[in-house]
Formats: sequence, structure tokens, C-alpha cells
Amino acid sequence: MKRLNSTPRQDGYRMPGEFEKHEGCYIIWPQRPDNWRYGGKPAQRVFVEVANTIAEYEKMTVLVNQDQYINARNMLGPKVRVIEMSNNDSWIRDSGPSFVVNERGGLRGIDWGFNAYGGLVEGIYFPWDYDDLIGGKVCELEGVDTYNAADFILEGGSIHVDGDGTCMTTEECLLAPDRNPDMSKEEIEEKLKEYLNVEKVLWIPRGVYKDEDTNGHVDNMANFVRPGEVVLTWTDDVNDPQYERSVEAYNYLINETDAKGRRLIVHKLYAPSPLLITQEESDGVDSVEGSIPRRPGDRMAGSYVNYYTGNGFIALPVFNDPNDERAIELLSELYPDRDIIPIYAREILLGGGNIHCITQQVPARKIPRNF
Amino acid sequence: MKRLNSTPRQDGYRMPGEFEKHEGCYIIWPQRPDNWRYGGKPAQRVFVEVANTIAEYEKMTVLVNQDQYINARNMLGPKVRVIEMSNNDSWIRDSGPSFVVNERGGLRGIDWGFNAYGGLVEGIYFPWDYDDLIGGKVCELEGVDTYNAADFILEGGSIHVDGDGTCMTTEECLLAPDRNPDMSKEEIEEKLKEYLNVEKVLWIPRGVYKDEDTNGHVDNMANFVRPGEVVLTWTDDVNDPQYERSVEAYNYLINETDAKGRRLIVHKLYAPSPLLITQEESDGVDSVEGSIPRRPGDRMAGSYVNYYTGNGFIALPVFNDPNDERAIELLSELYPDRDIIPIYAREILLGGGNIHCITQQVPARKIPRNF
Repeated sequence: MKRLNSTPRQDGYRMPGEFEKHEGCYIIWPQRPDNWRYGGKPAQRVFVEVANTIAEYEKMTVLVNQDQYINARNMLGPKVRVIEMSNNDSWIRDSGPSFVVNERGGLRGIDWGFNAYGGLVEGIYFPWDYDDLIGGKVCELEGVDTYNAADFILEGGSIHVDGDGTCMTTEECLLAPDRNPDMSKEEIEEKLKEYLNVEKVLWIPRGVYKDEDTNGHVDNMANFVRPGEVVLTWTDDVNDPQYERSVEAYNYLINETDAKGRRLIVHKLYAPSPLLITQEESDGVDSVEGSIPRRPGDRMAGSYVNYYTGNGFIALPVFNDPNDERAIELLSELYPDRDIIPIYAREILLGGGNIHCITQQVPARKIPRNF
Repeated sequence: MKRLNSTPRQDGYRMPGEFEKHEGCYIIWPQRPDNWRYGGKPAQRVFVEVANTIAEYEKMTVLVNQDQYINARNMLGPKVRVIEMSNNDSWIRDSGPSFVVNERGGLRGIDWGFNAYGGLVEGIYFPWDYDDLIGGKVCELEGVDTYNAADFILEGGSIHVDGDGTCMTTEECLLAPDRNPDMSKEEIEEKLKEYLNVEKVLWIPRGVYKDEDTNGHVDNMANFVRPGEVVLTWTDDVNDPQYERSVEAYNYLINETDAKGRRLIVHKLYAPSPLLITQEESDGVDSVEGSIPRRPGDRMAGSYVNYYTGNGFIALPVFNDPNDERAIELLSELYPDRDIIPIYAREILLGGGNIHCITQQVPARKIPRNF
């Protein structure tokens, strides 16, 4: 397929909201033993549950390294398509392409630069050579042409769009000096506008407390339910360091308008109680120089915001926490036409993210292919 | 996708003739230096020409090991889709799946067992673990369910079907003791009938002289132009060891009828003059225990029959031989509605096969997918 040096804005393509219709979804199989405890086996079981769940609603493809191919094929359900693809870790939201569409049935990918969340400065694993190729490879799999944005480091989890002219991100991540140190905030904003084809970028100051792996990705902090409507992770506990982050974001968002001039409605999605890594969980992780350690007692960046919005459903991470029910209730109200499917996902959180981080949707073409 | 333990015959699926309409075509990128001289570079250039040619007529996918992915992507044209897939060598006709269709738009694959042309007895490379997985992996790529025929060793190049009830093969290959030593000829015939859904198997005694790598695959010896009509590699030189093989096959075929009771029309396709490996060609190949040597002076199994029949075209191997023109002329007559595209393919022959051996078609579904 072609590598394009133009931009989606120039060509009339835009990134749709995740809540728009999908053609399918990708996941990468977890295995690296310095991130996923006990050789990845517990995480694999949860990834299987996520993939099998999504496969009931949309075309589901799981990508896997050669050495885990047979095991993954055997563990995953028959509705899941399993494809070999070399990878360093399982965060396809971040290593994968973003997709853009036009109104004439066009679908293209954007292949961003990827440096494992901070490269040689603060990256969380080394090397990341396979992961940097995932974007282009997934576009080839889909048989679509690819915008070459390799000179711009961006993880898909650090942005959300409403599909209607607005992007939402965090300063904590996009202005981190280990991503694009030679670019100003204005230059970064211009890049987002060109590639996502948006007119406005909303800059939440910081992401979730202790979301240090990603430098505060927005997809753990806030999400668009639909244009003009946002969920934000929340706590009322003024002694929780998350409190000031959520308040700061709330105040920012309610005082902003989106690209279409709408005032944003902000729904508070109460976070689970602080979740700490246990000794037993820590003991299951290989200790490797250059990979981020998983220490007992470390607080994890647990959040219900990290859900996947699919065709007719929400795949929602839950934690056996009293706030699970509250999250299910709020999302049931916000998404009356979708099944809310809670999945116990502490295991994904232990690896540093959650269901949104391990998924990447392919939007549906605006008109059917065969016409 | 599902692994099926039923058979195509049981389920009403059949393997269509290669001359029926295709959805697309697969090729595997060549690289192993103990088979492809000079690190595969000369072969890669010819594979690029074949792939780019096919991409003008049908959806073309090239599969490639991780370590050659970027190089392959850069060398291949933009109409070609490049997908990572671990492999031991490039003969997807043999390691890949055969596809079957039904009349209601169904498409499924058959994943045969593969042992590198003879396993530990007479196989031509070791190991073949990646290649044995190619069949199932290509079916997953296509998103189709797969018949599990792993207990039956079969290379796709050892069979041809007319799509109308008849299969053609060689005794030399299918009865070789290094494929399915515990099965009688009748049992093998029964397997072919079950999986290809044919009523009759034509057994040509032997394949092309010196086609020792494959034990005389039929796809280098004879091919169906259409039901009832066959091309057969030929020489008039009674001193050429090929002569008695071609005469033997000719006499067998003209005295047989196909599944529908038709007498076969057999067209003689004159072979190129004997082609010998040069010293320089031999010098470019790594010498490795367990891989078949490429010795200077060895005769290669050159044949024009080893062509690919695609949508609206024939990709025909030529050799800068006086008989090139004769082959083009005959095929132009036999395929009046297809472009005959000669490709100089000595480089593929040096690796042990030709254009048919390095391609695998996916038949078109009988009714469009979206209806």
C-alpha cells in the first residue's frame, strides 16, 4: 500500500469518534515477562475475555508474536482472527495506527512515531523496534494507504477526538520532554489539527495520578461520550492526590467550548479506591534493566474511563470495588443503546493500562465497500 | 476462526480450478541464503516483478519474515500488500492452504500437513516448523474457517483440479514413501476426493526429469487449461530423459477420461533446452547441512507449465530460450481472453521451482460478500 506524505486535512479525511461505527478491532497478545506477571498467563486469560467479548459485536483480530502464536490461537475463541505480528508489548492503542475516513468510503491509517513512552530518556522498555512498525503493518493488513507521521511521536492513548472538530489531550503527556522536545505547544497542536483534521485541541493539564508509564494519557482520565459530552475520572477524597488533578481538569473543561462552540457537559466517573501492587503480584514479574519495575505497594492508575466503546457495547474494566456498580450505572445512563459489559481487569492494570489501552478500533467506511 | 474436523465433500465445498475467478493471490518473500543465491537479492527482484505484475490484475499479498519486512515493503510496489508471517522458505503453493468454495458464497481453507518435501527422510530443508503453520495462518488472514487436514502430508503443487470433479497428480510424488508412508494409493485417493470434493483422480506416473526437490510435482508437468483440456511439458528429443516421462504421461492422459466422462485434449508445451546451474550461480548459495545443495552442472527442472493463471492473465516463466516464443504462442491460443505475460524466471528455477510454485490463489466467493 502507499505511504502518503500529504496529511488527512489536505485530503479531506478526519478521525471519527470512537463511538462512531467500527469495522473491527485489534488487540496484541501479552507475553513479556518483565511486564506481565507469571509469563503473561494471568493477563492472557483476561485478554482472551476481552477479545472474545468484542468478537461478539465486531470483527476482532488479535496480533501475536510467532512464539506465542499457537498458544494464542488455542486460547482464543473461534470468532477471533489470530494474525502473527512481531511486537515488543501489547499496547496497540499506543503503538498502532489511528484511522481516518472521508465521506466517500475512504479509509486510511496514520503511522505515528513511537518511542515506548519516552525513548532513551524515560521509555518504559527497550528496544521498541517492532512496536514502531505496528502502525504501518496494521494498515497493510487492512489494505489501506498510510499517512507517514513517523517524525511525530504520538501514542493513540494520548488523544481522544469527538469526530466533530475537537481533540482532547493532556499537557502532561504531549508536552513531556521525551516525546517531541523540539516542538512547541503550538507546533504540536498544529500537527494534531493536520493529522486528525480538527479545529480545536482541548489541553487538560494532567492525567491520572501515578499514570507515570504513559505520562498521564488522556484515555485514562477523560473520554468523549459524544460531541459535547465528556466523562472524567473523579474522587471526592480531598486527601487523595487524584483529587486536585480531577478538579483541575473539571474546571478546565467546563470553562472551555469545543470546536463547534458547545459548552461541554462533564460527567464525573468515580474512580475505584486506590489499588496497590501486592507482594505476590510483584514477585511474578521478571526484573530487567531498562524495563519499568512493578514494586509491591506501588499505587496503580486505576480508572473506569479506560473503557472501549464498540458497536453496540462498552467493555468496561472493573476491579471488585464498591465503585464498580456506580460506574456501570453511570455508563448505562450515558449509553442507553449499548450493552455495558464489565470485565474484571486488574490484571491489565498491573501491566500499566486497561481495556482502552489494549484495543484499537478500525472505523467503518462511510459507504459500503462493494458499491 | 474455526478449525473444522469435517471435510469439504461433507459440507458441499469444492476446490475450484485455478482458471476460475480469484479474490487475490499470496506470495512469500525469498531470503534463505542456503537456497537463494547471494542472500536472495537476485530472486527478490524477480519475486517483485511477479508480485507487481499480479497486483495489476488481482489483490496481491506478499508474506515476509520480520527481518526482511522493511526491505520487502521498500522493494515491492504500492499496489502490493505486505504482511509479516514467519516462514522457512517461499513455496506458498506447497506450504499454503488450498481454498474451497460453495455455491452460496462460502470460502474455506484446507490446512494440509507439510514436511518440507519429505520430512526427515528426504526433506529439502530443516526445520519446517514455520512453514507447517502457513496454511492455518493464511486462512486466519482471510478470515475463513479451516479444514484440519494436518494428518495428511500434501503440497499444493502436487495436485491440480479442473473444478469439475477431476484432480490430476503424479504417482512419483503422492506415493513417495516420505509423505504418507502408512497410506495406500486408494486411501490417498480417498483423501483427495474428500478434501477437494472430486470424483476422479488422474495419476500421471512421473513428473519432470530432475524435479527431485518435489518428487515430481504435477504443477511443473501438466496443468488444466479448462475442464477437458490439459497442457503437458514436452520434448521431441528422444535422447533427453524427459522424453520418456512426457510420452508416458501423454499416453496415460489421452487414454483416460475425466470425472464427467470427457476424453482429454492434451496440448504439448515444448520445454526449454536443458538448463544447468553455472559455477557462479552455485557459488552464491550457502552450503548448509540438511539443505539440498545447488551444484554446478546440475540440470534444473525447467518447464513452461509452471505458470500462474490469474484474473485475465497468465504469468509465464521464460528462460531466454528459443522455445520461449513457442510457449507464448501456444498459451495465447489456449487463453484467448488472457494477457500472456512472460517473466524471465531462471532465478526462481535456481531455487527449485517457478512462478506457479511461489503463488497461491484465493478463489472468489461465488456471490458477493455483502449480500
